[in-house]
Amino acid sequence: MDSSRPIDALNNAKNKKVIIELKNGRQYVGILRALDMHINCVLENAEERVDGEVKRKMGIMFLRGDMITMVMPTD
Amino acid sequence: MDSSRPIDALNNAKNKKVIIELKNGRQYVGILRALDMHINCVLENAEERVDGEVKRKMGIMFLRGDMITMVMPTD
Amino acid sequence: MDSSRPIDALNNAKNKKVIIELKNGRQYVGILRALDMHINCVLENAEERVDGEVKRKMGIMFLRGDMITMVMPTD
Amino acid sequence: MDSSRPIDALNNAKNKKVIIELKNGRQYVGILRALDMHINCVLENAEERVDGEVKRKMGIMFLRGDMITMVMPTD
Amino acid sequence: MDSSRPIDALNNAKNKKVIIELKNGRQYVGILRALDMHINCVLENAEERVDGEVKRKMGIMFLRGDMITMVMPTD
Amino acid sequence: MDSSRPIDALNNAKNKKVIIELKNGRQYVGILRALDMHINCVLENAEERVDGEVKRKMGIMFLRGDMITMVMPTD
Amino acid sequence: MDSSRPIDALNNAKNKKVIIELKNGRQYVGILRALDMHINCVLENAEERVDGEVKRKMGIMFLRGDMITMVMPTD
Repeated sequence: MDSSRPIDALNNAKNKKVIIELKNGRQYVGILRALDMHINCVLENAEERVDGEVKRKMGIMFLRGDMITMVMPTD
Repeated sequence: MDSSRPIDALNNAKNKKVIIELKNGRQYVGILRALDMHINCVLENAEERVDGEVKRKMGIMFLRGDMITMVMPTD
Repeated sequence: MDSSRPIDALNNAKNKKVIIELKNGRQYVGILRALDMHINCVLENAEERVDGEVKRKMGIMFLRGDMITMVMPTD
Repeated sequence: MDSSRPIDALNNAKNKKVIIELKNGRQYVGILRALDMHINCVLENAEERVDGEVKRKMGIMFLRGDMITMVMPTD
Repeated sequence: MDSSRPIDALNNAKNKKVIIELKNGRQYVGILRALDMHINCVLENAEERVDGEVKRKMGIMFLRGDMITMVMPTD
Repeated sequence: MDSSRPIDALNNAKNKKVIIELKNGRQYVGILRALDMHINCVLENAEERVDGEVKRKMGIMFLRGDMITMVMPTD
Repeated sequence: MDSSRPIDALNNAKNKKVIIELKNGRQYVGILRALDMHINCVLENAEERVDGEVKRKMGIMFLRGDMITMVMPTD
């Protein structure tokens, strides 16, 4: 990885599986379909995980960027 | 879904049923009638759900974007 | 309702009775007399309600937009 | 009251007695001498009230707008 | 006091003794030496007071404006 | 170190091992690969540490700047 | 001290020992090497103090301005 801006690292993760953690401690896993400079994200085939177990499956979801703590590409 | 910006995913959900979760944990289900770049949303035929059960029915409601954690189209 | 922007839905509610819920859980009912893009609102004949009961009557009140979670027209 | 902007309602309350409630639950009563678009306010002859009783008298006070929940003219 | 903007009231308090209360409940007393539009303040001969008693003496201190709830001139 | 701007100190830490502490108390250690003026950071070979012990290993991670309290270069 | 802007007081403290207190109550002591208008700061030879005792020594550290409550020059 040699992107110079953090947003580039996220753009490289587009259409790949990512883990997103929110400020409320929840974790979402899904395909990153869209993102913007506020770190607003759209996940597809999203799952909510609590303590490593799938709690909910939600298809497409829009996550507001100001709630996001971290984004981790899994590939 | 091939929208490049997260806001496009929300625009695609306009006039469709969505689930909106707030930072205070409450969940609202209704028809998404309007939204802007702050993610301020207007729902029609909105219901407030707590633990999956309908707690209140509120017709049209304006939700301030900074309270929103996620928006999920249901169709 | 066919307003394209959320703020339009609020403008349509002007001079009508609305319910406003704040981030601290309090609820105010009154005639919406003014609002701006920050969602700062002015209510007239305002009442504070807690658990559905009127707790205070306050005439005209200015509510700072960043405290507002939702606005619901009642008509 | 027929002001179209919320800030106008506050300008109309200038040099009149107002009640200001803060996000920390405290209430201040005094003459509104100055305000700006951030809702920063200056009160004169200000009193701090807790549960309806005067707790402190503080003469002139500057209140930072982002701490304010609501402003109520009393006249 | 006839200043039209809240910031003017603070400018009038420059080089005078003021009491500043923070969002965390702490109170600082000192000579107001500098301030800006964010309400960042510099106090000289500053004292930290808790329940009316001097807890610390700190000479010159810079206070970040977003932590400030109120500023009260004492003269 | 003679950088005049704080962001320069972070730029000097690029491609080096840093410790990042978040507002929620968590600590991440990894190679700083990217950062921007919001202090959004990308870490590579990142580890989450709690009380000094490695809790998770996460490869590449994007950390949202508004969650960051401090960044410490370790070299 | 006769600086007219609060940021000037901080610039005067550059390359001197300062105490920085954060919103989470932690205190850092070190040489102030850099700062910007967001009050982002870089400390060198930094120590973390809890209840007056040194808890950690961290060399160079970048502190995000929005976490800072106050900065006190010690010279």
